[in-house]
Amino acid sequence: MELLKQRILADGKVIGNDCLKVDMFLNHQIDVGLLNEIGREFHRLFAENNITKIVTIEASGIGIACVAAQYFSVPVVFAKKGANKNIGNNLYTADVYSFTKGTTTTIAISKDYLNEKDRVLIIDDFMANGKAAHGLINIINQAGAAVEGIGIVIEKGFQSGGDALRSLGYRVESLAIIKSMENGEIVFG
Amino acid sequence: MELLKQRILADGKVIGNDCLKVDMFLNHQIDVGLLNEIGREFHRLFAENNITKIVTIEASGIGIACVAAQYFSVPVVFAKKGANKNIGNNLYTADVYSFTKGTTTTIAISKDYLNEKDRVLIIDDFMANGKAAHGLINIINQAGAAVEGIGIVIEKGFQSGGDALRSLGYRVESLAIIKSMENGEIVFG
Repeated sequence: MELLKQRILADGKVIGNDCLKVDMFLNHQIDVGLLNEIGREFHRLFAENNITKIVTIEASGIGIACVAAQYFSVPVVFAKKGANKNIGNNLYTADVYSFTKGTTTTIAISKDYLNEKDRVLIIDDFMANGKAAHGLINIINQAGAAVEGIGIVIEKGFQSGGDALRSLGYRVESLAIIKSMENGEIVFG
Repeated sequence: MELLKQRILADGKVIGNDCLKVDMFLNHQIDVGLLNEIGREFHRLFAENNITKIVTIEASGIGIACVAAQYFSVPVVFAKKGANKNIGNNLYTADVYSFTKGTTTTIAISKDYLNEKDRVLIIDDFMANGKAAHGLINIINQAGAAVEGIGIVIEKGFQSGGDALRSLGYRVESLAIIKSMENGEIVFG
């Protein structure tokens, strides 16, 4: 998605060789006009899949998922992280390991909001090693629902998450894939 | 907002005398069509205020803020909670006490995304004792920006947060105010 790539080049900040900060427009301050174009593109890619629900994970995925969901006219369900979930005990859960933090977090979705008739599009802001996506897939499988696809705004193509999921047969559509960002230079794949 | 009140009566669950669960349509599963009507109503209420930024707090506020922001054509900035903020060190911070959890959390917004020219609309899903709103106001004041108003989806009118903010001169607009919910019966104010 050209608009997104141009925005990453203009406003993304590379830290070291593998950290990309996009908090100016995607995950702290949010450019909602850009989000709208991102939502439109996800809908173009998955319009034929009869999506019934968009699933994401708090916090950065929520805004993207909600704006995209307007194009699909389906509800969003976001997985909650950690102990203070306040969504009852009737839960599907999965453990997600974070390389960045070196910790494992339990994510949860209430059994009330996913079922075996659902055709799910997973949406998230970033894909690196894919651990969050695997956790969501695990939960969607527990519900007996179908994973129709995974829509990612920015994939770190130099990490293995996206291709590992593709090799398992999942349709992963990333709107920008970064091949490398050594020496501060972003190269798209 | 009548549509919202009807939805609360239909799908909200009262637990005890003071807990209202709306995770079927607002803060776990999200009815994005309803969010769109909520956004439209916030815009109707604050259309004359020349809002330049919508500020909210992770996680439940983000979807509401993003959908509402489409009506205002302004960016959203969401305050991050806790230690793993990953937004650098150039931060405005405030401490927010949670009665529910009995703990204090530090919330933060990068100094890059709020300044003295901003006219801010705060948006959140719930108002009870108002501690989150006070934390956001504190941060907005640190930035020298103006708090134009506070838009709340559901206010617990039997708790003091909303009226305390009104008595301080803030314009608090709550789309549904719950006067009481004793014995499971929701009464709007």
